[in-house]
Amino acid sequence: MNVVIIGGGGVVGQKLARALVARGHLLGRDIAKITLADIAAPALPESGVPVEAVTCDISDRASVAACLGPEVDVIYHLAAIVSAHAEEDVDAGYRINLAGTMNVLERARALGTRPVVVFSSSIAVYGGEVPDPITDHSALNPQTSYGAQKAMGELLVTDYSRKGFIDGRAFRLPTISVRPGKPNRAASSFMSSILREPLNGQEAVCPVDDDFRHYYLSPRLCVENLIRGAEIEEAALGQNRAMQMPGRTWTIREVVDAMTAVAGPEPAKLIRWEKQPEIRRIVTGWRYDIQARKALSLGLKADESFKDNVRYYLEDDKPGR
Amino acid sequence: MNVVIIGGGGVVGQKLARALVARGHLLGRDIAKITLADIAAPALPESGVPVEAVTCDISDRASVAACLGPEVDVIYHLAAIVSAHAEEDVDAGYRINLAGTMNVLERARALGTRPVVVFSSSIAVYGGEVPDPITDHSALNPQTSYGAQKAMGELLVTDYSRKGFIDGRAFRLPTISVRPGKPNRAASSFMSSILREPLNGQEAVCPVDDDFRHYYLSPRLCVENLIRGAEIEEAALGQNRAMQMPGRTWTIREVVDAMTAVAGPEPAKLIRWEKQPEIRRIVTGWRYDIQARKALSLGLKADESFKDNVRYYLEDDKPGR
Repeated sequence: MNVVIIGGGGVVGQKLARALVARGHLLGRDIAKITLADIAAPALPESGVPVEAVTCDISDRASVAACLGPEVDVIYHLAAIVSAHAEEDVDAGYRINLAGTMNVLERARALGTRPVVVFSSSIAVYGGEVPDPITDHSALNPQTSYGAQKAMGELLVTDYSRKGFIDGRAFRLPTISVRPGKPNRAASSFMSSILREPLNGQEAVCPVDDDFRHYYLSPRLCVENLIRGAEIEEAALGQNRAMQMPGRTWTIREVVDAMTAVAGPEPAKLIRWEKQPEIRRIVTGWRYDIQARKALSLGLKADESFKDNVRYYLEDDKPGR
Repeated sequence: MNVVIIGGGGVVGQKLARALVARGHLLGRDIAKITLADIAAPALPESGVPVEAVTCDISDRASVAACLGPEVDVIYHLAAIVSAHAEEDVDAGYRINLAGTMNVLERARALGTRPVVVFSSSIAVYGGEVPDPITDHSALNPQTSYGAQKAMGELLVTDYSRKGFIDGRAFRLPTISVRPGKPNRAASSFMSSILREPLNGQEAVCPVDDDFRHYYLSPRLCVENLIRGAEIEEAALGQNRAMQMPGRTWTIREVVDAMTAVAGPEPAKLIRWEKQPEIRRIVTGWRYDIQARKALSLGLKADESFKDNVRYYLEDDKPGR
């Protein structure tokens, strides 16, 4: 079993690699090799199985061909120009998120071996005029270029699978929290930082009111779902290879209360409540009333309680743990 | 007012050109010039306004740039590799229907004038796991590459409009009947030929039972809707620039009875009922329980009765009329 993770340098790609190393098998076969591909060579986990880091620019066909050789069995395609970046640099977004995804799928097709391709889509495909609740049968009406590109990637994955070129699966990731590392420029960044920084003894700013609702998943369950996603029997996938990955809806108040329940009252005192109307404007346009029935029926899982998200951060990611 | 019709050699493109010539104005301005662009130079209608025919290969950027000059105000993009062809030649389908559409939109963007772009999508975007009735908020789950490419085109039109690059509108065309000309290889071909050939005194084969239901629109109202589609005030379009063009659902029995009501009992006697399981398999996978509320609210129209479709054929298209 030979696995390539494109976007292997990102938070999810790195955790997925470590989980696959720890697991040792996928689709009933021992993992012989894992390749982590990214625009810069990714860090390598300690591993008993061969793990290789390669640079790959998915907007370049030769680069994609070099990192997807005939021996690949499972391709995780997690690479993307993220939302704010794709909004600012429209050409880069289409080049990486649309043409790049097409390059990955075309290379997978050219191998002639019908590899499993797991594609990370996003809840950014939702928006616009579509009524709540969002179900597996709701129209996609993205209000960012990133969301439009992810929706197009889903259509490609389903079409290439229907044609027998690949065995594709696409999962719309919820907002991942508690995300390790540093704050980034994503409007959703605070949804991890108001937990991560206080749990690390640092201040953080919450730019919205504590009744703001959103749809979350822990990194640990996201990785478990991506592994399960590769292993779902093909016949069970049906006529649409794209589906919502399960998450749960929480208010900021519930999220902070979960942190207090797990880690005591001190971290919450490190949150500064400073309203930021521009952040609020963006994030209140997002959807949180989302159902993930198909994925749940196929064995994918959401966190039981946000206390789990907090505990996983402390166990998996807190510096000096 | 300068109009370019890409796909101007097709049945709808030709009728649209003649209707624009007869109308003489669009968006409140006199039409100064109409350009009909297609892979082969289209026929030209008799016209009091300048009408030009040009060859254009939308998969070639230079060719697109040559046919979309800075003076263009409204672009109709009707060109496509049709369903059966795109199913057989996947590369041609993606090259013309996806990359070609992207080339048209990129050129429109590069003009910097934010032209109106009217894109013809199709009811082929529906299918798969989505429950009836199909509404403006139903997921698109196409089961052909053509449908997937049209769905991607819709996403591009909405995203490019949201970004302010174009003023786009996309309409999912019902099956157009009674379509003039000869039968083609489309599985839907019989839905015109069982009317057209008998009305012309010739035999035709109906490959399905007379209770088969489908969603139809006459060519005349399709063209009226495409003209109205360009003229809808932008603010009324909302956050999704793609919508179902209105049609009506009829059984084959209702369709044939309408022909008899308009043209007497003889034509129906020229229909040979010969079941063709492969045609039946394809067309019964299509959707007919479709609502077009948004387009109806914006002033687009469906035929009142299939008798209208028959009458329009006799008035507009019957050879020797």
